[in-house]
Parts: sequence; structure tokens; C-alpha cells
Amino acid sequence: MSKTMAINAGSSSLKWKLYEMPEEETLASGIVERIGLNNSVFTIKYNNGNKYEDVLDINDHEVAVELLLQKLIELKVIENLDEIEGVGHRVVAGGEIFSESALIDDEVIEQIDSIIKLAPLHNLANLTGIKAFKNVLPDITSVAVFDTSFHQTMPAVNFMYSLPYEYYEKYDARKYGAHGTSHQFVSERAAEMLGKPLDELKIITLHLGNGASITAVENGVSIDTSMGFTPLAGVTMGTRTGDIDASLIPYLMEKLDLTDVQDMIDIFNHQSGLKGLSGVSSDMRDLEAAEAEGNERAELALRIFEDRVRNYVGQYIVKMEGVDALVFTAGIGENAPETRANIIKNLEFMGIKLDEEKNNVRGEERVISTDDSTAKILLIPTDEEVMIARDVERLKK
Amino acid sequence: MSKTMAINAGSSSLKWKLYEMPEEETLASGIVERIGLNNSVFTIKYNNGNKYEDVLDINDHEVAVELLLQKLIELKVIENLDEIEGVGHRVVAGGEIFSESALIDDEVIEQIDSIIKLAPLHNLANLTGIKAFKNVLPDITSVAVFDTSFHQTMPAVNFMYSLPYEYYEKYDARKYGAHGTSHQFVSERAAEMLGKPLDELKIITLHLGNGASITAVENGVSIDTSMGFTPLAGVTMGTRTGDIDASLIPYLMEKLDLTDVQDMIDIFNHQSGLKGLSGVSSDMRDLEAAEAEGNERAELALRIFEDRVRNYVGQYIVKMEGVDALVFTAGIGENAPETRANIIKNLEFMGIKLDEEKNNVRGEERVISTDDSTAKILLIPTDEEVMIARDVERLKK
Repeated sequence: MSKTMAINAGSSSLKWKLYEMPEEETLASGIVERIGLNNSVFTIKYNNGNKYEDVLDINDHEVAVELLLQKLIELKVIENLDEIEGVGHRVVAGGEIFSESALIDDEVIEQIDSIIKLAPLHNLANLTGIKAFKNVLPDITSVAVFDTSFHQTMPAVNFMYSLPYEYYEKYDARKYGAHGTSHQFVSERAAEMLGKPLDELKIITLHLGNGASITAVENGVSIDTSMGFTPLAGVTMGTRTGDIDASLIPYLMEKLDLTDVQDMIDIFNHQSGLKGLSGVSSDMRDLEAAEAEGNERAELALRIFEDRVRNYVGQYIVKMEGVDALVFTAGIGENAPETRANIIKNLEFMGIKLDEEKNNVRGEERVISTDDSTAKILLIPTDEEVMIARDVERLKK
Repeated sequence: MSKTMAINAGSSSLKWKLYEMPEEETLASGIVERIGLNNSVFTIKYNNGNKYEDVLDINDHEVAVELLLQKLIELKVIENLDEIEGVGHRVVAGGEIFSESALIDDEVIEQIDSIIKLAPLHNLANLTGIKAFKNVLPDITSVAVFDTSFHQTMPAVNFMYSLPYEYYEKYDARKYGAHGTSHQFVSERAAEMLGKPLDELKIITLHLGNGASITAVENGVSIDTSMGFTPLAGVTMGTRTGDIDASLIPYLMEKLDLTDVQDMIDIFNHQSGLKGLSGVSSDMRDLEAAEAEGNERAELALRIFEDRVRNYVGQYIVKMEGVDALVFTAGIGENAPETRANIIKNLEFMGIKLDEEKNNVRGEERVISTDDSTAKILLIPTDEEVMIARDVERLKK
């Protein structure tokens, strides 16, 4: 009986999932929200569907971890803490240091700290989670799993920006990508479903959620991805612009009377994308409802989202000189049949065809292309947490 | 005998070409440089290859125009000013007002003035040229030809940025593109060469010069183009970054200790691209020479340029659901066979093939694809000046 915990710590939250390993059975999951604020919310969901919720003041992540472990025993999810043999932490930015998951020791903590500049808010929060668990459970295996490491295989031609070269050498300015754990998970699963070796496949993975990124996975490794130095770049997202002409920044700052460029970037991150275009919502379901009611801006937002995703599909097909499989995953990818259909429509001229009936599904793993399609189209629900648990299992040996 | 002049006015320069129309015969061309500075340089090139050069102080564009006309008579290119029946002016930004070339009157001048914000330096300089000719030759036909107007056919799905919608409504923030005159010229010429109606063709035009842009021309109209709100966006260029993660701006400004965002944009425009990556030069010929000598950064810069161009080719093939012809033009497009070959290489999997021997050419109009290629590949030297002269000829009737 070996239990492993997958952790995703935000600045005021702690998301967790407890697995029985190596069976990969979910025992419980939950989230602690509003840490450090009043009325923190503590939620546990059991694998039988029952929920436990409490509202109380939780001052910091360490208190949250202590409370979580205490509740797991109280609620009889575990009998004692010794059952938990490992904990895996999602870390957003791994820079060029981490091309794979790492057993956490003092040096690794220092290294994560040294690249905080690449994702200031996220990495700091991730480190807070790591340290909280280290303090409460000092002796268990602790592993850092990086959102960027799957993309560290990108060649320089694809990760370099066309900037003065020294910005890369001195300041690490380059493309890192994100959602790596998800892109890796679905590409591995795709190879299994196709019954072919991953290292002989050209796969385009479409992680389409509130954040969205497209990755070209050639022979099992990421060779290019749509997100950039940060997750702001690439396709249109729920609230993010994706790719944009940088000249708009000084232009709009003057119009909006902004003096701090960070305020502009904040608008690009939080007030733009589907939300900014539609004026309705950042949520695909709301937009589909508004479109059905004849809202033209909602319709425009949806068409733009599909177009920008398709643009990356087109460039990656050419980059890999063909494609064996396209994989849809994450919130929108798993649950928006019409969006999938609109994206794939433009590939029919090259023989890539969606089966309308098979595509009429939400959140279920299956092949959704026609039998005669020249590339398979797959719907694969992603599971970043189980990838974290697997890495803990692998590294603790 | 009707003569028409094509004008491209910069802030301290005036580039011109004199045509016999409608024969489209070049009678002379030249440039006045360092206008308003000391030691202005005045150059005329005759159609027999002879040159005339003078260095003198030219205070403003009006003086430049007067001198130019006087010299044309002195040097017997024309006998008197009445021979010049029309003048066409290149104008960089036409906003949403100008979807085609316009006969210049007071209203048009006001309208061009009203969109100076879209290209402050360029449009102001273009207006200076327009006014100088108006003052010296008040009675001839005067036409404004806009770099952006060919792209005004783009649908909203392609020209809108994923920003708060009101930035488009209030501030005209959208994609305008550039090089329109060139994209139009080569796409029209491509249809002639293919012997097919332009409005039945899917063409990708690759204007690859020191500035570079790629356009999807479907049924004769531009439906998407790689440049954006300004010519900074799109592919890697001589000194411009092309597409970039906007988050890099506050990040790099802090590292470089910059306080004015415009300084960052200036670096993106003038110190980046092939020049910034290679540290050698912004000029393709210098980079090819450096690559031959084993310079790795020059090699990287060339591969990145090819990759970014290919990315747009890939997305436009998918956007148009196929392609009938790809057209290379402008400095690099016309004169870099290896670059063309490296871009097309990745399209062979879909049957688009370059003929190595036919491709071994510089600056000559010809088909360079193999006979069995599924799309024609064409090399067409561009001629933006003759397009300007044609618009004058067309509009003066």
C-alpha cells in the first residue's frame, strides 16, 4: 500500500490529489482556497463522490498542509501519515535547468529559486507548497514536475526569438512553452491507442482549455509549441491575447493613458482573448449559448479561436512534413465537438476527416476520425496529476 | 506622350521613377537623400544606365521636387513640365478608410492626416511629398496608393486581435498588413503566367526583402497576411523580430534598465531579426557568406528565417484548404535560391516540389516548380512603382 500525493500550489491555494500507486487509483482530491485570507475554504472529494467542506482561517501553506493531512486521517482516507510515501509538486517554470522531473533536495530548491524570474508568481507559489510539505513530512520522497520540461527537446531554431542573441545568453529570453505534462500524457496515450511506437509518430497535441497550447510531438519529443517565453503567447485563450503585434503596446498605452507596461500585459493576460472579444465571457459554453442567441461578437470570438488553433495545426503539419495523429484534450478540447469540427474542417483537403457521429462526445477517450482519414484524430482526456504521481513513483525507486 | 511619376517620400528622402504611360517604359529614376540636412545627395539614373549625381543643400521636400523637375528638363529627360500628367504617391497606412487608391484632393489629404497615428513617421513623410508636388505642380492628377489597401479585404476573423473589442472600435487597433502593392502585383502576374482567372486561384505570395511578409490571396483578394498593426509583426526580418511573446517586453525592459517602452520597440525594429540573431548583418548575402565560413549564429539566423516563413505558408495552405501557386518576390525571394529551396523542402510531402535546376536563378520571372508539382512555384520580380503608375493612369480618366 503506497500512497502518493500530487500537488499544485498557487499563491493562495493548494490543489491536491491522493493516489494509490502503482494502481493509479484516486483515493481523494481537494483544494484549499483563500490561504492567508479570511474564510479560507477547505474541500475534500472522496472517490465515492462524497464531499467534505469547511470554512475557516488558514494562515499559510504549512497550516494548510497540516490541516489536510489531519483531515485525511480524521475522514479515514488514510490511517496514518506513514502510508504517504511520496509527494509530487507541479512547478510552472523549469527554465533550461530541468529537462525532466527532479527529486527535490536543497540544491533543486535553490535552482527553482534561481529561475523565479521566468514565472515570478507561479514559481514562488510552487516553492511555498514544496517547503510546506518538506516541513510537515520531511522524510518522504519529494519530486518537482515541471510544466516546461517536456518542451526542452525543442531545437534552437524553434525556441529562439529573433532578438539580439545576448538576450538569450544573459537573460534566458527564449521560448519555454507550457502544459508539458499534458502534452506528454496525451501523446504517450495516443501511441498506445494507435498501437504504434511513439518514436515513429508525428503527433499534434491540442491542449485547449482556458489556457491553450498546441504542440508538435515528433518521434516522442516536443519539437515546437505555441506558448512562448510565458503562457501569454500562441493562440487566443479565455482571457489571453495569444500572439500580437508588439507595436500595439506603446500605441495602446498612450490611448489608455497607461504608464506602466505591466498594466498593459495584465490586460493582455486577464481582459483579452475570448472574454475581451466577446464582451460576454471567457467560457466556451457561455459563448456557444450567446452565439445560439445571435450574439455576433460571441460568434466572432469562437471563429477567431478556431482560426488561431488551426494556424498552429497548419504550421506544425508543414514543420513535421505530415501528421499521423491529432489529439484534442483539456476543457474545450474534450467538451466542444463543434469547435473540434470547425478546426478539422480545413484539413479535409488533405484527407484528414472527422467522423461526425464519433465526434459527438464529451470527455471520453476515443478515435473520432473516419476510418479512411489519412491521420487519426483522437479525443484523450488529459490527466496531469497522474503524470505527477507516476514521476514520484518512478523516481522514488 | 504621357508621363507619370511614382513617388515614395521618406522623412528626409524622396525616391522617384518616371514612366512613359501606358507603355510602362521607365524613362528615369532616382532618389534625393538627406533632405533638410547638409550635403543632400541628388541622384538620377537614366534608362540607358547613365547616372547623374550632385551634392548640395536641399532644405525641404518642395525644394527637392523643384530641383528634380528642373534637372529632368536640363538633362533632357523631358522637354517641359506639361508632359507630366500624373503623379502617384506611395502612402504607408490607409487605415480602414482606403480600400483602394484615391485621387488626392483636400478631403483625402485630411483623411490621410487623420490616420497618421497608425504610422506616425511614414504617413507624415508621405504627406510632405504629396504637398510638395501639389505646390509645384498644382494641376496634374495626383493619386495616393496605399500599402495597406490590398489587405482591406481581410475578414474580421483574420484582422481582429484578441483584445478588448473597444480597442478596435475606439482606437482602430487591428491588423492592416503592408506590402499590399507588391502582393497584388505578383498575384495578378501569377494568374497571367498560369493562364487562369485570378478569382479562381489560391495563391500564397512571399514578399521576402529586408522587410518581409506573406499573404494568402484567395480568389484575387488578400484574406490574411503576416504583418500586423504595423510591419513589426510576422516573420523574422532583416532587423525586426516578427512575432514575439509580449511578456518579453516588461521582462527585458527591467533587465536592460529601460523606462520607455518605445525604446524596447525600437530595438525590436532595428536591432533584432537576422541582425540581432547573427551579430553579423541584416543582409542575407552577408549571412550566407558567414554561414559558408562556419559561423553558427549566421546559420541559425538563416534557419530561423526559413522556419518562420514556412510557418506562415503552412497556416495559409490550411486556411485556404489548399494552394495553387506560391510566389517568391522581393530582394531575398528573387535572389536567394537556397532559401527558397529550404522553405519549399517541407512541402514535398504534399506533392509541392521545386525544380532544382529551374530554381538556380536570380531576379528572373519564371516557373521554378517541377512539372508534376501539385502547386506551381513562381519567381516574379516585384514592381511596386509600376503599380503606382498604373493606378494614376487608371484614375486620371
